[in-house]
Amino acid sequence: MTRWNPTSYNPDDFGNRRHIGPSPSEMEEMLKVVGAGSLDQLIEQTVPGSIRQDTSLDWPALSEREMLSLMREVAGENRVMTSLIGQGYYGTVTPPAIQRNIFENPAWYTAYTPYQPEIAQGRLEALLNYQTMVADLTGLPVANASLLDEATAAAEAMAMAQRVAKSKARAFFVSDNLHPQTISVIETRAEPLGIEIIRGRPEDCDPAQVFGAIFQYPGTFGHIRDLTADCEALRKAGAVAIVATDLLALCLLKEPGAMGADICVGSAQRFGVPIGYGGPHAAFMSCRDEMKRAMPGRIVGVSIDAAGRPAYRLALQTREQHIRREKATSNVCTAQALLAVMASFYAVFHGPVGLRAIAQRVHLNAVTLANALRAAGAEVETDALFDTFTVRVGVGQAGILAAAEQRGINLRKVGRDRVGISVDETTDEGVIARVLDAFGITDPAEPATEPAIPEQLLRESDYLTHPVFHMNRAESEMMRYMRRLSDRDLALDRAMIPLGSCTMKLNAAAEMMPLTWPEFAMLHPFAPQAQAAGYHRVFKDLSDKLCTITGYDAFSLQPNSGAQGEYAGLLTIAAYHKARGEDRDICLIPTSAHGTNPASAQMCGMKVVVVKSAPNGDIDLEDFADKAAKAGDKLAAVMITYPSTHGVFEDTVREVCRITHDHGGQVYIDGANMNALVGLVKPGEIGGDVSHLNLHKTFAIPHGGGGPGMGPIGVKAHLAPYLPADPREGAGAVSAAPWGSASILLISWAYIRMMGGEGLTQATRVAILNANYIASRLAGAYPILFMGNRGRVAHECIIDTRVFAEHGVTVDDIAKRLIDNGFHAPTMSWPVAGTLMVEPTESETKAEIDRFVTAMLAIRDEITEVAEGRISAEASPLRHAPHTVEDLVAEWDRPYSREQGCFPPGAFRVDKYWPPVGRVDNAYGDRNLICTCPPLEAYAEAAE
Amino acid sequence: MTRWNPTSYNPDDFGNRRHIGPSPSEMEEMLKVVGAGSLDQLIEQTVPGSIRQDTSLDWPALSEREMLSLMREVAGENRVMTSLIGQGYYGTVTPPAIQRNIFENPAWYTAYTPYQPEIAQGRLEALLNYQTMVADLTGLPVANASLLDEATAAAEAMAMAQRVAKSKARAFFVSDNLHPQTISVIETRAEPLGIEIIRGRPEDCDPAQVFGAIFQYPGTFGHIRDLTADCEALRKAGAVAIVATDLLALCLLKEPGAMGADICVGSAQRFGVPIGYGGPHAAFMSCRDEMKRAMPGRIVGVSIDAAGRPAYRLALQTREQHIRREKATSNVCTAQALLAVMASFYAVFHGPVGLRAIAQRVHLNAVTLANALRAAGAEVETDALFDTFTVRVGVGQAGILAAAEQRGINLRKVGRDRVGISVDETTDEGVIARVLDAFGITDPAEPATEPAIPEQLLRESDYLTHPVFHMNRAESEMMRYMRRLSDRDLALDRAMIPLGSCTMKLNAAAEMMPLTWPEFAMLHPFAPQAQAAGYHRVFKDLSDKLCTITGYDAFSLQPNSGAQGEYAGLLTIAAYHKARGEDRDICLIPTSAHGTNPASAQMCGMKVVVVKSAPNGDIDLEDFADKAAKAGDKLAAVMITYPSTHGVFEDTVREVCRITHDHGGQVYIDGANMNALVGLVKPGEIGGDVSHLNLHKTFAIPHGGGGPGMGPIGVKAHLAPYLPADPREGAGAVSAAPWGSASILLISWAYIRMMGGEGLTQATRVAILNANYIASRLAGAYPILFMGNRGRVAHECIIDTRVFAEHGVTVDDIAKRLIDNGFHAPTMSWPVAGTLMVEPTESETKAEIDRFVTAMLAIRDEITEVAEGRISAEASPLRHAPHTVEDLVAEWDRPYSREQGCFPPGAFRVDKYWPPVGRVDNAYGDRNLICTCPPLEAYAEAAE
Repeated sequence: MTRWNPTSYNPDDFGNRRHIGPSPSEMEEMLKVVGAGSLDQLIEQTVPGSIRQDTSLDWPALSEREMLSLMREVAGENRVMTSLIGQGYYGTVTPPAIQRNIFENPAWYTAYTPYQPEIAQGRLEALLNYQTMVADLTGLPVANASLLDEATAAAEAMAMAQRVAKSKARAFFVSDNLHPQTISVIETRAEPLGIEIIRGRPEDCDPAQVFGAIFQYPGTFGHIRDLTADCEALRKAGAVAIVATDLLALCLLKEPGAMGADICVGSAQRFGVPIGYGGPHAAFMSCRDEMKRAMPGRIVGVSIDAAGRPAYRLALQTREQHIRREKATSNVCTAQALLAVMASFYAVFHGPVGLRAIAQRVHLNAVTLANALRAAGAEVETDALFDTFTVRVGVGQAGILAAAEQRGINLRKVGRDRVGISVDETTDEGVIARVLDAFGITDPAEPATEPAIPEQLLRESDYLTHPVFHMNRAESEMMRYMRRLSDRDLALDRAMIPLGSCTMKLNAAAEMMPLTWPEFAMLHPFAPQAQAAGYHRVFKDLSDKLCTITGYDAFSLQPNSGAQGEYAGLLTIAAYHKARGEDRDICLIPTSAHGTNPASAQMCGMKVVVVKSAPNGDIDLEDFADKAAKAGDKLAAVMITYPSTHGVFEDTVREVCRITHDHGGQVYIDGANMNALVGLVKPGEIGGDVSHLNLHKTFAIPHGGGGPGMGPIGVKAHLAPYLPADPREGAGAVSAAPWGSASILLISWAYIRMMGGEGLTQATRVAILNANYIASRLAGAYPILFMGNRGRVAHECIIDTRVFAEHGVTVDDIAKRLIDNGFHAPTMSWPVAGTLMVEPTESETKAEIDRFVTAMLAIRDEITEVAEGRISAEASPLRHAPHTVEDLVAEWDRPYSREQGCFPPGAFRVDKYWPPVGRVDNAYGDRNLICTCPPLEAYAEAAE
Repeated sequence: MTRWNPTSYNPDDFGNRRHIGPSPSEMEEMLKVVGAGSLDQLIEQTVPGSIRQDTSLDWPALSEREMLSLMREVAGENRVMTSLIGQGYYGTVTPPAIQRNIFENPAWYTAYTPYQPEIAQGRLEALLNYQTMVADLTGLPVANASLLDEATAAAEAMAMAQRVAKSKARAFFVSDNLHPQTISVIETRAEPLGIEIIRGRPEDCDPAQVFGAIFQYPGTFGHIRDLTADCEALRKAGAVAIVATDLLALCLLKEPGAMGADICVGSAQRFGVPIGYGGPHAAFMSCRDEMKRAMPGRIVGVSIDAAGRPAYRLALQTREQHIRREKATSNVCTAQALLAVMASFYAVFHGPVGLRAIAQRVHLNAVTLANALRAAGAEVETDALFDTFTVRVGVGQAGILAAAEQRGINLRKVGRDRVGISVDETTDEGVIARVLDAFGITDPAEPATEPAIPEQLLRESDYLTHPVFHMNRAESEMMRYMRRLSDRDLALDRAMIPLGSCTMKLNAAAEMMPLTWPEFAMLHPFAPQAQAAGYHRVFKDLSDKLCTITGYDAFSLQPNSGAQGEYAGLLTIAAYHKARGEDRDICLIPTSAHGTNPASAQMCGMKVVVVKSAPNGDIDLEDFADKAAKAGDKLAAVMITYPSTHGVFEDTVREVCRITHDHGGQVYIDGANMNALVGLVKPGEIGGDVSHLNLHKTFAIPHGGGGPGMGPIGVKAHLAPYLPADPREGAGAVSAAPWGSASILLISWAYIRMMGGEGLTQATRVAILNANYIASRLAGAYPILFMGNRGRVAHECIIDTRVFAEHGVTVDDIAKRLIDNGFHAPTMSWPVAGTLMVEPTESETKAEIDRFVTAMLAIRDEITEVAEGRISAEASPLRHAPHTVEDLVAEWDRPYSREQGCFPPGAFRVDKYWPPVGRVDNAYGDRNLICTCPPLEAYAEAAE
């Protein structure tokens, strides 16, 4: 009886039928189009046999329910304590409306970086709010849209200071009152750049010796110091004054801008973003106006669209590493968009009055606690403070820390004889009483009413004066504002995002759920490790699985972006050479590399030598061998991407690795294209010594509208001793937190466990099938660049649109026209100018891919209309794209119909996505740079 | 130093600044418009002093964080066990994509009932999928869009059978194999209607004696029986055959329709809806085509819009109680829309192949377990079964139940010497082993491969053949389908829904969060009560608080809708009179009453006598006194609504109550307008004996797009002994589950605790302010009906539009034109035909209310255009409303501009909501009734 076969369909089969797009029957149809007899055959034709791994990934797949059940078990192994450790991470209350409507909402978390501004106006507005908030609170006019973490931001600020300083000194002053992890990351960064780090008390800084200095305000131990004189002295010496600071403190304290600071950095974590055992959170940076073009990271600015209406977009993109390439001095690429959005909404939610009240409450609670300790005879060391102070406890340190822990509280261990206490938004009377109890004080504390902030350090200026921070605080209003913004954007929850090199695969609901469980969200990264046993179980298993997948022997989970991973990987290589007494500093990089590659190499003090590409896009092996030989015993590393950024499995990869090793170099294989390898090829087996993995690509972490990302690195055993150091333990760390953005590692772990070894391998195979299917379907209409030897692409394909230039049709026209079809454009002009790189991933169904193909073929027809002279490019729907509702309402004087303009083949009809603005004018925005919320009147003006 | 006042702003103040819309300064402005010196003064002018309560509600407000922390503590007091109790409630796996994108998504849960079809096409499609699923699986052509629970559905089916049966017999046969709670609710329902219930084994049914019979298939103890002969015999006798059944079983078993059943009922809970300690879940009902117009509840049907495109809407609304009023025989009003949507998506998610495989797995696991028990010598009683069987265990019963509980498993206690076991989707090898272990069997079970279903009971027909059930199963596809449907709808997350009498207030994110915690979601309502200590702590505190709020002495949390509450309240009154030996059956109801009032009274066997209204809308006191006197010692009850359904606090309410009591009657105060009373007036203090509370109105449970609701009743002490009985303990229950839809009680509890007594009172005051503000602003443009003595309305106001009829402008035109402004229309033509009743609630901000006023004033201007002859009503934007994008794209031959049509004052521009269809033709749909998904070609046809 054939019907009695309950195993014929597994309702819980996440790996094969929920994550992977095409159904088995669709795959059959697609294989026919591709011209392959089977998926096995296609893979044989695509992936060179010489590099295929010989063992399968072998762990079993879990159902969603099994994974969540395992996750609950793991969560139970973490202990949620009240952490008053501070040191850059503070308890905070995430407003439930923000948690549910942003953090847990795929409309926000599945969005891509806002490179296509017309379909990203919602998050661009939220990020502009963030910039305005940071600029206002720090008292500096320009802020960027977030950086990876406070420590990285500080290191970036140092590099930026070197670029802009008049002083030609080679040294940089680092105040001892910085958080230890910040010092560690700065020192890591300084060393390969040849910057001498001078450490000392703030007052020890000698401006004449340095190109810049960084102070912390309030300091890591809580002390607040007036930095006006320090900044002034630096300014006079032509050096740059950097202040690491705290946004909540600045609601009460005089802002660094008013003290003469040039650059501010810090973390926005305590604005409603869960600690998550270290991240992700948004760091910030702001600076003086005259330095803005030297600022790293993304900046949202205001421009206008084709109809002259105001429109947001990323400003100054010419500064970005992916354009400047070899000249880049920062490899910053990923931001922390989702977390910056959350922090900005926290400010919108509370407004300046609310933030001030929260800051006052925090401060008075800290004073209450300090007073009570003093009154009981304890030696409180900090007089002028915001939320943090230290107590000298002598030999009693261990006892007090233990007593506090018994009462559910973590205090900070400072040196051998002190403890640090940081009060936060969640600290209440009960917590204060428990802390006192740990000190043996049972009398109730007398609530403080007077601040412990010196008069001259009290803030005098207003902040957050823009109307967006003065909205009605009712949840209805907040909820609707969040909904309106998310509706303006096009994310994965509505359509495929076929971005080559970005692997926009499904971010499954089940994978996201554990993140907001308190057992994962509330852990402090510097809490005793025993309290985080669940997290460490995940780290261990995730590292083991990643080793198996990649063929490497060890992993560091610290780098919190792909570029950070590259940097960490190259540092590891450099440290290895150095430890062997070798002086190697040449890094070979093919022209087709990701722009971050050369930037990362330069950050590690390496000299970049560019290797040519052959006409077919492959590495020019002859040129490579020449340059490697020329580098000789100076050859430090070779950075390659595999499959290549051209989307091809090059047959010569083993040869490249062999040559490199022959010259004593190390092979860095960029893991950006790992989605074409998992289960088929192990980079560590074909010659790689190091790779980073973009967990936010291949391993299902969502892109969050432009971050978070995670870029852990795997290395062969000989490099393992040189992996990044713990940021608490001196120089050598690359991120502020020991395990990077720990909480989102849960997503990748859930993905790897639910897919199982077989499912992961099948995902790779289907990703290759989907890409080849697109290549086959579009090949008649568009030239496909770079097929492999057997006429196959890997997991992405490059469509050449340069041939249309003679008719006046640009790659931009095609990209914007796709918006009319409800698609995010493929990657534009990378790795080859004038092309589109398409990566469908395994998660897209045949139906959605067919919709995309329909759209692309219709666009091709429109190009033919132009090419054959029936319509000019300027008058065509291609140039007018994207079309908005306003176009429909307005007078219509175009040579094509409204219908044709707005509903091209492939577009949904009832469910059509309408961009809120027409084509955005980038040049206008860069000429008239506005990076904070414009006054409301500006909108009216622009519209005129 | 004035700035040091951290208590001046409480960031955690949910009650005053998150839930309540207008800010303090906005309230000042509004009071000026209203012409009141203060909020106190306004309330004095509005609420008669004679009825004001003299003590304040006094419990403290909790912050969201405190509430969630308390909720976690309470959750920890529940024990999550594996319940194999069955009896209508089964373990199920809610797909995470459905949980996150529907159950936890305000776009779905804050929507109202789809009475305005143009802005509800998304959920109407999902509900049509539900109907198609039910119709297919039960084998009957017509299904409704859900009912409250299986037991209620069975009682409704009995009433329906009586309406349609040819037989004039007065008795109804109830098979003993029904779930006990179903029997209880049927018996409750039968008694006042004078229906004799005959119980027995299925084979004992004598068709000649009854107008209908109900069987359960599979039976409550698991047995499956071929009902073909039973149905045939009933049919011949002119009686109706009803089958209570199980959707998952029907994936394998011959469908009741094929056996000759006339009506099917059951629960869709196990299609992915968490048990939640009893609910909410969607019950279903399907029937033969010729009975469809007698079917209770809502039916979604397919019609066309003004442009001839297919459009969904509620069909056959003329059947509904709110139209038929005194003639109604069912008071069904609320459905379980949100849960029906979830269940339908579960079917879309798995498709027929998946559902069949799940059913097969469940069945084979049940057989495996039964075989293993038999093999070990246990007396398994059930041969032909799907998922449930009983074991005769004699005196070992208590021991086995305890042993199972020790192993984390609940079995069903059946009589004194048997246990029941129901296998479900979540049952795995481990559970089977633990059950066997509880029986002392340690050998592993031999997996069954052969079904235990008799050949003639195997299903032969196909089901779920419509393409929607054959979508690609990839999560990307499912997620996007859910997003597309939700985007078609307009819910509270985008705009005010100013529905009079419906109290569409904020459903805060924090209130919703605990629902999906496993400690609340996974509990079986018939599990040992000790496992649900957390739930019972909530029930206790919620009841206490509701008593304090209402002035009643006891509460029953059982009724799971407002109408169910009315019914339960009147039953309580009837039982009280009966217990005192009094024969009272007259129920006085004013003309302005909710339509459910007379329907409920008739269901309780009472005779409805209608009391006139005075011209000002108040109860005509003279008529009332007359009719009460005339009823004399037959007077059972008076049902009034307070404040009245006209939105006025009548001064005479105490007098009405006094007169009623003087004649020995009981006063039922409908709690629909409780949002105007909380903290100001206690119905139990002004003369009420019973009230139901619509927790889904006043107490923040979201409307879910048309359910769930909850309607607990409060009574004075003398009525407490007559409250609904436990459904497990014989007749007298009104719902299937002892505490109704228990899980959503958490929402109301969270609301009451976060608001605190003061916040709740303030909410009432602001609700009254908001309504009076609207009345003041619109008074110059529209007649406002029914102001109180001092020219004030209560929490809602009625706008008269009948004056425009002479110009051809209808209330429909105004309602649909509001859609162009992005609003759900106010309540139409109730309680007075040709009017609009507006209730803003306290949660709407001044800005949103002003936007509504702007829209209404602009509409008034458009009416003037018509009235003054500048444009005909037919040609005006009023009649063409709502405008769609298709209107913009199409040829435009209207006398007004596209701009004027689509962007009337008050409409958002960038963020405009576009209805997916134009005005829906209701009459067309009723003439051509289609209540299951039409074939896809139908869409093409309709478009032609």
